[in-house]
Amino acid sequence: MNKLIKNATVVTMDADDRIIENGYIAIKDDRITYVGEELPADFVAQVILDGRHKVVMPGLVNAHTHTPMVLLRSYADDLPLQEWLFDKIFPIEDELTAEDVYWGSTLAVMEMIASGITCFADMYYFMDEVAKVIHKTGIRADLSRGLQCFDTEFDPMQDVRLLENEQLFKDWDGEGNGRIKVRLGPHSLYTCVPGYLQACAGLAEKLNIGMHIHVAETLKESQECFEKYGKTPVQHLYDLGIFKANTLAAHCVHVSEEDMDILKQNNVNVVYNPGSNLKLGSGITPIGSMMDKGLNIALGTDGCASNNNGNMFEEMHLAAIVSKGVYKDPTLVKAGEVLKMATVNGAAALNLSQETGMIQPGMKADLIMVNMDKPHLYPLHDVASSLVYSAQAADVETVLVDGQILMDKGEFKTIDYQEVIYHLKKISDRLFKR
Amino acid sequence: MNKLIKNATVVTMDADDRIIENGYIAIKDDRITYVGEELPADFVAQVILDGRHKVVMPGLVNAHTHTPMVLLRSYADDLPLQEWLFDKIFPIEDELTAEDVYWGSTLAVMEMIASGITCFADMYYFMDEVAKVIHKTGIRADLSRGLQCFDTEFDPMQDVRLLENEQLFKDWDGEGNGRIKVRLGPHSLYTCVPGYLQACAGLAEKLNIGMHIHVAETLKESQECFEKYGKTPVQHLYDLGIFKANTLAAHCVHVSEEDMDILKQNNVNVVYNPGSNLKLGSGITPIGSMMDKGLNIALGTDGCASNNNGNMFEEMHLAAIVSKGVYKDPTLVKAGEVLKMATVNGAAALNLSQETGMIQPGMKADLIMVNMDKPHLYPLHDVASSLVYSAQAADVETVLVDGQILMDKGEFKTIDYQEVIYHLKKISDRLFKR
Repeated sequence: MNKLIKNATVVTMDADDRIIENGYIAIKDDRITYVGEELPADFVAQVILDGRHKVVMPGLVNAHTHTPMVLLRSYADDLPLQEWLFDKIFPIEDELTAEDVYWGSTLAVMEMIASGITCFADMYYFMDEVAKVIHKTGIRADLSRGLQCFDTEFDPMQDVRLLENEQLFKDWDGEGNGRIKVRLGPHSLYTCVPGYLQACAGLAEKLNIGMHIHVAETLKESQECFEKYGKTPVQHLYDLGIFKANTLAAHCVHVSEEDMDILKQNNVNVVYNPGSNLKLGSGITPIGSMMDKGLNIALGTDGCASNNNGNMFEEMHLAAIVSKGVYKDPTLVKAGEVLKMATVNGAAALNLSQETGMIQPGMKADLIMVNMDKPHLYPLHDVASSLVYSAQAADVETVLVDGQILMDKGEFKTIDYQEVIYHLKKISDRLFKR
Repeated sequence: MNKLIKNATVVTMDADDRIIENGYIAIKDDRITYVGEELPADFVAQVILDGRHKVVMPGLVNAHTHTPMVLLRSYADDLPLQEWLFDKIFPIEDELTAEDVYWGSTLAVMEMIASGITCFADMYYFMDEVAKVIHKTGIRADLSRGLQCFDTEFDPMQDVRLLENEQLFKDWDGEGNGRIKVRLGPHSLYTCVPGYLQACAGLAEKLNIGMHIHVAETLKESQECFEKYGKTPVQHLYDLGIFKANTLAAHCVHVSEEDMDILKQNNVNVVYNPGSNLKLGSGITPIGSMMDKGLNIALGTDGCASNNNGNMFEEMHLAAIVSKGVYKDPTLVKAGEVLKMATVNGAAALNLSQETGMIQPGMKADLIMVNMDKPHLYPLHDVASSLVYSAQAADVETVLVDGQILMDKGEFKTIDYQEVIYHLKKISDRLFKR
């Protein structure tokens, strides 16, 4: 089916950073076939989307989250980290069923679509359920089974989690017209013994897939790593061969200059999660230095227990202002750079540069339309600034993934809102009201 | 006219922090007459507002802004402070007319109403125009004429600005059924010579009105104050008698323990502006220490050239997470404390504790209704957490000030949206497209 978007301000995020006023975008099935200032000749569209007063930009890439944790939103806030994790989060997670994960992930996907996210990297368990959600809702995602192992005597061939992750890859990678991708999800160095991490690196090489891992999130992690292994987390993971795979390194809050050099030399993709890092008291990621070193920095919300939302507009705003304030430099992390983190850099981090993150002929039609006709978006002197500093997630009006409309004027086209809320309430009653 | 809100989750913000499920609120003319769990007997309402799936809470108090600066939104971002101010902001401000200020302020008020702000403290010039806007739109505000004087030989009786501020007080204080209040607005210690600040303190005493001033916003201000006067900004202002008046001290980023003690002893109200402080690279306000000392801390957005929005939901989220991250303590600045900053503390800072900031019989009916039936607000484990960490400004559906509905389901009842945008575009064309 052909779709045409007309009269929109198109923020292409292409190599020339083109912004086209009164632009046209032609979409054939799942891909963009034309972007420019003229109505494309001979293009007959079955669906026409009016872009007046709207910015059309690439859908946002949320490069690190744990979607089913939306079930724990606002359940345990403002607590010390250990109490939060061990007394609150873990006990509830122990009781989650496959069905809970299915509906939790659906709720999270609904929230993300509503806020303009068209692609995300997810790490959790019961990932088959999450894959079903992606398949059904039409969004794009990169999935990994959260892996952990405290047993130094483990047998990789008998490790249920590792086998599950491998099976997830076999069952789902490339499904949904390529919308679903799978990588390995070793949780972190403090939940995986070194031998296990090496086994993950080996499996990644065998399957030729990427890696999604938490790196240097807290000072505690860094200090304990140094005490135990005499190295920083980055050096430790590098020595274990983790970075041989295409790696999505979430957080990277506590990293040295040398660590950043290792990340750069190994093309490791850093995922910046300012909201979660602040809320959990993890600290401030030295994003300015990372940018100076030319690292690829993507942006992520993290899970809803530690954010508490899947709102990339808020995350963009945080990314733009936190470093400015902490380092007392208002020129650090400019609006245009933040837009890149949330689009092209995210796509690159997920190895999807040829598919998404940019509005350009040949790319997948993963687009959002942002309504700029709101009091808080006038006057419009600078589109990038307005999107990063002033826009809200709720300004997103229309969302397309793979050429399919997933939301239009706030209405979900592939998800039954009331059905999700019905199940959500049932699950909440079972888990929390005992 | 009588209004009834029914079946709402009422976050009262009263002394007992009561949250009433399925609550009722009765409003007679401008005041709340009943809050509780029962339908009030013998109360006949002409307007009934359905509170299902909604939180009703006190309208938010934006305790420091410069509304007309909305005209400069997204005009000059990510620049060094001096370049931003002297090359961009000041030259445009020099060209603003009274009419520009009128429409700019109207746009800002529209944005603030849409995001649940029912009361704000404003400092700028052409304040007569702003007063007209407040009168017409129905919002509540505390206005001050921005005062500055670099001339040590000035004559207070001839100072146009000071006379304007006094006239503003005489013309407008108490107008609009008490919705408009006026105080003096000496801009800061670096734009006002000591004698001028003393004259302000004298006039405040004579008129028995409050003071609105920027304090210790940047390191530069603090350093230069110390070089020039051998004191910190707080000590300097204290010695000049500024704090004898009820004072609204915006920013207070660079303050010592002793400074905080002085602020506390003088009942100075601190306005925390996390968004602006971060974006301009001003630094991190030691809000945790201020809370420990029992200071009254209100919350403000600052002007739109340095934020770039009038979104108190975003400001609340920032207030809750910034200190946690910077001081690596997830228990700092809890959600409930932030709600207080944005409501009761703001009202107290503006000397309006008996009028607004709380839902309680006898108080003015300054209320907002927040629609919680959104994907990003499920599940609802903790109302305060959901409002602070997950809600967006756009979730505000209905806004009442002084018992009058200013917005309902996104529609402005006292402002013609298209008229404002029409004037806004004309002004932008004149100022910026030369």
